[in-house]
Amino acid sequence: MSDLGERLEGYRREVEAALDASLPPETAWPATLHRAVRYSLLAGGKRLRPLLVLASAESVGAAAADAMPLACAVEMIHTFSLVHDDLPAMDDDDLRRGKPTCHKVFGEAVAILAGDALLSRAFEVLVTLPDPVDAERLRRRLGVAALLASAVGTTGLIGGQVEDLESEGVAVDAPTLERIHRAKTGALLRACVRGGALLGGAGGDELAALDVYGAALGLAFQVVDDILDATEDATRLGKTAGKDEAARKATYVTVHGLDAARRTADALLAEALTALAPLGPRGETLALLARRVVERRA
Amino acid sequence: MSDLGERLEGYRREVEAALDASLPPETAWPATLHRAVRYSLLAGGKRLRPLLVLASAESVGAAAADAMPLACAVEMIHTFSLVHDDLPAMDDDDLRRGKPTCHKVFGEAVAILAGDALLSRAFEVLVTLPDPVDAERLRRRLGVAALLASAVGTTGLIGGQVEDLESEGVAVDAPTLERIHRAKTGALLRACVRGGALLGGAGGDELAALDVYGAALGLAFQVVDDILDATEDATRLGKTAGKDEAARKATYVTVHGLDAARRTADALLAEALTALAPLGPRGETLALLARRVVERRA
Repeated sequence: MSDLGERLEGYRREVEAALDASLPPETAWPATLHRAVRYSLLAGGKRLRPLLVLASAESVGAAAADAMPLACAVEMIHTFSLVHDDLPAMDDDDLRRGKPTCHKVFGEAVAILAGDALLSRAFEVLVTLPDPVDAERLRRRLGVAALLASAVGTTGLIGGQVEDLESEGVAVDAPTLERIHRAKTGALLRACVRGGALLGGAGGDELAALDVYGAALGLAFQVVDDILDATEDATRLGKTAGKDEAARKATYVTVHGLDAARRTADALLAEALTALAPLGPRGETLALLARRVVERRA
Repeated sequence: MSDLGERLEGYRREVEAALDASLPPETAWPATLHRAVRYSLLAGGKRLRPLLVLASAESVGAAAADAMPLACAVEMIHTFSLVHDDLPAMDDDDLRRGKPTCHKVFGEAVAILAGDALLSRAFEVLVTLPDPVDAERLRRRLGVAALLASAVGTTGLIGGQVEDLESEGVAVDAPTLERIHRAKTGALLRACVRGGALLGGAGGDELAALDVYGAALGLAFQVVDDILDATEDATRLGKTAGKDEAARKATYVTVHGLDAARRTADALLAEALTALAPLGPRGETLALLARRVVERRA
């Protein structure tokens, strides 16, 4: 593994430990809820979003540790969205990260509440600061909490999921598809990059460059997701494959075709990498993450 | 109406206007979600929680306007919990505040997402501050956001709902019942009182007195709710009556009997009013709210 790869693996292990420490133990009251929340959050996964936060903070010269609360918060938000999306009333999925989904194990009611708890806990982690703290750090934390809430809200992740559900079985044009994806998966990914940079004190040109990177990466992620759904099987995906087609969902593959989707992913990767150029060597970890997003197989 | 009553009614109108202004219009993308969120949040109701926030801020000499973002946030949290509690997988209720529940109008998927959006928006409203802001106000906002998140989380409202669901059809003893209620309804009511006071800069004795008030009021609220569920009909309640008995839920009435429940409510009201005594006339609005909670008929 390259030095960069090792650094990312080190970050991933730190994220796992921080996530574990961010939740009450399974034995704490109410045990059922804590079991469900831990089952969902600590199920492994690539931890792309926390790694983006840490790499983005690093890219502007900040210590990754300062960004760890945000790293935990974005993974909680991501997991909350998976738990709710998998519910019978939504995508009705039985399998996630190779394991039975939360509602299959704990029932629908607890799964709804476990998602709620993860969403709430994400903000709790983010707004809890040890005293004494200087005004500038307080201001950054509040700003990042507002950024995250906006990324989750009615014009972000949650809004995108609503339009995605409404578009099932409906002919969707390319602009609509892009709007859904920018909201449903792109908003949180962009907030990871921008949030890490803001916590690190970035401004001006650095922030603008990272915003371009985040937008390209966010869209690339979804394009690749659509390619994988169309081409991989469930064993490799760790979730039900071919679901998009079965649900007659519009994807980059159904709207543009497989070849065009692959060309789009490559173009977005190039755009993301170009945006990082002004950051020099400090942007290398972000560059590696972008390559992994586009070149992943599952 | 008394002067105090008129002041409360003025606050209530200000809260309605602030809630309305805190959400995007129904026409904004995605329209379905914004319609569902506005339908649920702007359905009237007594607005007890926002009024507690404003009255608590007032009781420590602060301007009610400074506490309005928290007032909106707590009503959003309250509404989120109602929307999710009413879902078929939970209490499966068709009627709320005299109107069809969110999932009856918009379907289950949108109702789940509307609840999610309200929870997220609550934090967004709370952590969004206009620049420039002094460090002390930043610190108070973060502290109150953490308090609110804790009141909602796994040992607060959401945790209480989990244990409440698990206790259906099970013999529940008095300490368990009290733990459920302290979490499910008490935690948010206490946070309203404490949060309003913290935003107003309260500390020491004032805060301690208001914590006693908030705890007594929170428990009294649930005891009275149980009494009303056992004695009122659906028309007056605006929601399905007798549901607790039908679901074989433990309540103060089923565990202690109706007379004892009424005596408990009166004793808690006395405790709440006694706690306010050191605040003098500034505590009068909180006193009126406590009386209304215990003496309400529906």
